[in-house]
Amino acid sequence: MVGGGQLARMMTPAATALGLHLRVLVESDTASAARVVVDSPVGEPRVAGHVLDLVSGGPGGQRADVLTFEHEHIPADVLAQVEALGVPVRPGPEALRHAQDKIVMRRRLTELSVPCPRWAPVPDAAALDDFLAEVGGEAVVKTSRGGYDGKGVRVVLASAQVSDWFAAAADGGPALLAEEKVPFARELAVLLARRPSGEIAVWPVVQTIQVDGVCAEVLAPAPDLDPAIERQAVLAAVAVAEGIDATGVLAVELFEVPARGESPAHVVVNELAMRPHNSGHWTIDGAVTSQFEQHLRAVLDLPLGDPAPRARWSVMANVLGSSLERLTDALPAVAADPGVRVHLYGKDIRPGRKLGHVTVCGDDLDDVRARAARAAALLRGETPGG
Amino acid sequence: MVGGGQLARMMTPAATALGLHLRVLVESDTASAARVVVDSPVGEPRVAGHVLDLVSGGPGGQRADVLTFEHEHIPADVLAQVEALGVPVRPGPEALRHAQDKIVMRRRLTELSVPCPRWAPVPDAAALDDFLAEVGGEAVVKTSRGGYDGKGVRVVLASAQVSDWFAAAADGGPALLAEEKVPFARELAVLLARRPSGEIAVWPVVQTIQVDGVCAEVLAPAPDLDPAIERQAVLAAVAVAEGIDATGVLAVELFEVPARGESPAHVVVNELAMRPHNSGHWTIDGAVTSQFEQHLRAVLDLPLGDPAPRARWSVMANVLGSSLERLTDALPAVAADPGVRVHLYGKDIRPGRKLGHVTVCGDDLDDVRARAARAAALLRGETPGG
Repeated sequence: MVGGGQLARMMTPAATALGLHLRVLVESDTASAARVVVDSPVGEPRVAGHVLDLVSGGPGGQRADVLTFEHEHIPADVLAQVEALGVPVRPGPEALRHAQDKIVMRRRLTELSVPCPRWAPVPDAAALDDFLAEVGGEAVVKTSRGGYDGKGVRVVLASAQVSDWFAAAADGGPALLAEEKVPFARELAVLLARRPSGEIAVWPVVQTIQVDGVCAEVLAPAPDLDPAIERQAVLAAVAVAEGIDATGVLAVELFEVPARGESPAHVVVNELAMRPHNSGHWTIDGAVTSQFEQHLRAVLDLPLGDPAPRARWSVMANVLGSSLERLTDALPAVAADPGVRVHLYGKDIRPGRKLGHVTVCGDDLDDVRARAARAAALLRGETPGG
Repeated sequence: MVGGGQLARMMTPAATALGLHLRVLVESDTASAARVVVDSPVGEPRVAGHVLDLVSGGPGGQRADVLTFEHEHIPADVLAQVEALGVPVRPGPEALRHAQDKIVMRRRLTELSVPCPRWAPVPDAAALDDFLAEVGGEAVVKTSRGGYDGKGVRVVLASAQVSDWFAAAADGGPALLAEEKVPFARELAVLLARRPSGEIAVWPVVQTIQVDGVCAEVLAPAPDLDPAIERQAVLAAVAVAEGIDATGVLAVELFEVPARGESPAHVVVNELAMRPHNSGHWTIDGAVTSQFEQHLRAVLDLPLGDPAPRARWSVMANVLGSSLERLTDALPAVAADPGVRVHLYGKDIRPGRKLGHVTVCGDDLDDVRARAARAAALLRGETPGG
């Protein structure tokens, strides 16, 4: 696996249980995953030699059965060299392009008739001005590559608001695209896993609540979800998975758009991720098979596990930043609620950084949500009120 | 933690989630836990220097917050030296004696009025002959120390059947005790955790099914359990935990004895273990809080997690030995049942060795049991029939 963050870290229990040897290319020996993965060489995903050493240097010089990732930032030529060695890359380089480049993704989804916001590549300011005029004066501009957690996304009224990005693009930086600003009621996510042999397993559709572009809370399943919307969301995600030949876990983030005038309620796809995803952390505690185990099964082309929920409601709350010296200092207070499931990422504390998450499962959504929020607040070093 | 077997291995996901640094003294660098624990020095529990290095040599020379074990084979003087360093030992050396020495255990349980089989220390053949006469001619003879998984236990009709053990005892080997052979209907186990501050959390009473003295299957909860028997079992286990001041996970194995004549149905305590236990492996998948996480919480004196079951039935089946070359070779067949939870221990395959376990949860006990048995058979390299 390439990438030593919390996603690789949370992969370890599943690898351990299945008796798999997990070897992770980490950014540094204090990376989140490096603290818990026995075999975690330090290296750069962009350096072919580091990735080739990763896949060929297993125990006793054994070659890896498969290479996978916890992020999309691996150059295509590096992946091609891994495949040339005879090590399968999953998701495959061709599929991965759709998670690496938002213009490639939008173009493909449009071909597949998967519902998207109105969008256009905007090679220059004039193109963006045209698009703004077309969609009513406001648009979301994105860099086609390199964005995450709200980075690389701006809501603009005029092309001048992204003149720096145009300059960067002209200088070899990522191309830009513009999307209409969707008047959504809420954000949903469909998480699924797909094997090379085609089998797909879909977890229940969830609601995600973002704060400043970062996932703060996930409600599983999405409360009060219209069955027609649920069907649309799942069909869209499956169409994407099959259309781009995704393998492993695929997260499809969607906007739920309420009915307006003649237009019925519907969903449009916002973003894709082709790996375990924040919207699926609840599956560790709330589903029969976690997204981490499922990703391993999928990339190894093993039969997929049961994605059924294990509780009526599961709520996940992220811990972003903390005023504590060590997150473990909050454990006595957090553990005082015996049903709170705590997941800390072993990272140094920095403002805004994803340091951990909590999940609470139960029958009463309001209760479950309040308890998850309280536990997350304690881990942020706050004294939660009421 | 002292001991690098599967119990330490299965502790790692809980330590990772709670953001704890787990340092394990392992028997060799190919031990089950050594394969998945980043910080796992090789050493001997009997060598004070190795254990003292373990607790003082954490990251940056940090001293451990607590020392705990996955087995009971640590000499008392080694534990005393650890405590002298200021590192708490949990369970404490005094409590641990009851898991190390069956005569100490029986004596204390008798003082606590915890129901036990009739028993006596048997210092010599004459004492055993007397005991045999008293209990009707048949008894179970045990070595007071060093027994596990059916080792150190013999059912005898005459003292000559353990003359080798008497000779060994005379030569400095473990003392012997004799117990009446209890006419039990089945075996039960109560698993609980206790903090130094006194809080206790008890998982549902389970039925254990032994084959050749080794746990083969666990049914959680014990089916058709009479509420009065359940109460007796839990009260006995709590009395033991408090009476010996146990901390961490305590497993109390009991015999359920049916009513006969004037004697009502009742339970008697068979064995104790003061650590996570095979009878509690089902809690990883079947309970809100696993025994491994609970043990860490308990020995760190954190509030205990919820021991409630997450399914109506959970059945665990052990994998003892295999004719496969690698257990992972069975994964495609085992994973074809999407609800089977697989736990492999990363050990070299040897006949009779505990190599892994599987757990299945569900609403229909017969179905759950059959599926667990089938998965275990596949992992043993058998082609399971009907």
